Amino acid sequence: MIIAVDAMGGDHGPSEICRAALTACAEYDDLDIVLVGSAPVMEPLLESADSSVSRRISIVHTDERVEMNEHPTLAIRKKRTSSIRLAMEMVRAGEASGCVSAGNTGAVVAGGVLVVGRISGIDRPALGVALPTLNKYTFLLDVGANVRNKPFHLYQFAHMGNIYSKRILGVADPQIALLSNGSEDIKGDEAVSGAKTLIAQSALNFTGYVEGDDIPYSRADVVVCDGFSGNIVLKFAEGLMTAAASLLKEEIGQRVLPKVGMLFMLPMMKDLMARFHYEKHGGTPLLGVNGAVIKAHGRSKAPAIVSALRVARNFVKQNGVEQIREELGKGGA
Amino acid sequence: MIIAVDAMGGDHGPSEICRAALTACAEYDDLDIVLVGSAPVMEPLLESADSSVSRRISIVHTDERVEMNEHPTLAIRKKRTSSIRLAMEMVRAGEASGCVSAGNTGAVVAGGVLVVGRISGIDRPALGVALPTLNKYTFLLDVGANVRNKPFHLYQFAHMGNIYSKRILGVADPQIALLSNGSEDIKGDEAVSGAKTLIAQSALNFTGYVEGDDIPYSRADVVVCDGFSGNIVLKFAEGLMTAAASLLKEEIGQRVLPKVGMLFMLPMMKDLMARFHYEKHGGTPLLGVNGAVIKAHGRSKAPAIVSALRVARNFVKQNGVEQIREELGKGGA
Repeated sequence: MIIAVDAMGGDHGPSEICRAALTACAEYDDLDIVLVGSAPVMEPLLESADSSVSRRISIVHTDERVEMNEHPTLAIRKKRTSSIRLAMEMVRAGEASGCVSAGNTGAVVAGGVLVVGRISGIDRPALGVALPTLNKYTFLLDVGANVRNKPFHLYQFAHMGNIYSKRILGVADPQIALLSNGSEDIKGDEAVSGAKTLIAQSALNFTGYVEGDDIPYSRADVVVCDGFSGNIVLKFAEGLMTAAASLLKEEIGQRVLPKVGMLFMLPMMKDLMARFHYEKHGGTPLLGVNGAVIKAHGRSKAPAIVSALRVARNFVKQNGVEQIREELGKGGA
Repeated sequence: MIIAVDAMGGDHGPSEICRAALTACAEYDDLDIVLVGSAPVMEPLLESADSSVSRRISIVHTDERVEMNEHPTLAIRKKRTSSIRLAMEMVRAGEASGCVSAGNTGAVVAGGVLVVGRISGIDRPALGVALPTLNKYTFLLDVGANVRNKPFHLYQFAHMGNIYSKRILGVADPQIALLSNGSEDIKGDEAVSGAKTLIAQSALNFTGYVEGDDIPYSRADVVVCDGFSGNIVLKFAEGLMTAAASLLKEEIGQRVLPKVGMLFMLPMMKDLMARFHYEKHGGTPLLGVNGAVIKAHGRSKAPAIVSALRVARNFVKQNGVEQIREELGKGGA
């Protein structure tokens, strides 16, 4: 399986991405990676690798990149040799089974729509993320492909979330919910309330509204919201857990007794922090496009890129795109 | 100072509220509390208290209450002897300096507008909460008085947040920010983007957009958003920290070594959990109405009601309403 990686995207550039490619190829021997980016920069970074790994990594050279603050659609249209666009063209042409980018989110979405193309029946793709919660995972979408959405967009997200949860995450009969400002019927804004009516009439296992605190308590398998709300929730979760972890470290540094305690507590605290450390679970699939397009966090270092490559590989192996296409073909959305 | 308490509101009813009233009056000897609710239910609950405390607690009897799932505005208009309405009428008449309710949020807002009345220059009141963050507190508003808001509402929230942060929380020159789905100028929906233009032209110390992860990192003193987004963020934070705490407890129960460690770690963990345990910081002021109206969480037990009474007392002592009125009179909003 070939995965194309936008090696110029993200805050840390090619060095972290090359390290990630080497780690991922060492982990999975069915994985071939094409790094799209500056060859002179990347070649030395890959030189020292074992040949069993490095022979599965190739480079497609380009110096052009989409910057984080560029207008996404314009950048995708105009920068025809940008690393992100070239990676997506490989997906469209069938030269790669999927692609990963830690670049400009808007450009990933615009590239997904304009280059890779939408699945028939989907008006807007959505970024979904499997959030670790108390007992299991909750699949939250959209976390930032869109800003605001109409009821029928949310309705389509519900269907895609259902398929992803069932087919990729292996949940038998996923409970679908809409994120709202209260669980009562009178709550919600126009979009959420309209979507509630649409989803309730569908064949989905729909539980109605959930509130913010229902997410960590895993009260639904799939939580649907617009890209604005989902983005805030995801980033807030990342920030809160990172802040709590750094506060914990600081506290330990200041106290003597806790240091003794920490020797015993360390394995447990590590498990707990890892469970809720959302950044480690990097890699959100862009659902609704004709290919495995995986967005990694802009701040991703090598481990998060490896995680995104794992998500890409899994999505391809499970025939994610075909599953969505097939279910929608049955008259889903 | 007299604070009226809606003793019929909230999930736990008069017993928790009576306990809270006794605790708060024992803590502050300048505090008199009027409990609005069923006298036959409450009298026995107050009987055993020391007279130095109980003589500062009185009861205004009513059996009528607004239920959690009732339509807020209709309930306030029709249930003229409901505990929440009577408590608010005491504020309007000047018989109480403020009121606290753990009841139906919509009814607290509707009562604030229809019974207590809005401050001139404010179109919509907002619920604000001081969220504990890494180094300090971030004042987040609106957390649920509204659903969606127009740019000029958000602009008014920014002004009220600025005053609350400065005058009540004691922040010298509060940094004001708008919650958005990205920090770049092209981000935001129409409301947020419109508000950005308005606030940027004001005299406020405005830092532009912040993202979800900027909240726990205290990257602004005041974060402004619509009631839908703020409600989700607040509840998600509550849920995440409660879930993490219960996971920690469970882990400790299952492992032997951590138990030994826990003896040393306990004080530190307690500090940390208390800091991020948002429910303990109960009591959100409804800003923009002509009185100290404090909303407590529906799930509030006695300690959270005591916390809400503390917020009410502090708001009254600092002349919160007058401060807002005065600043707005200077041509603020």
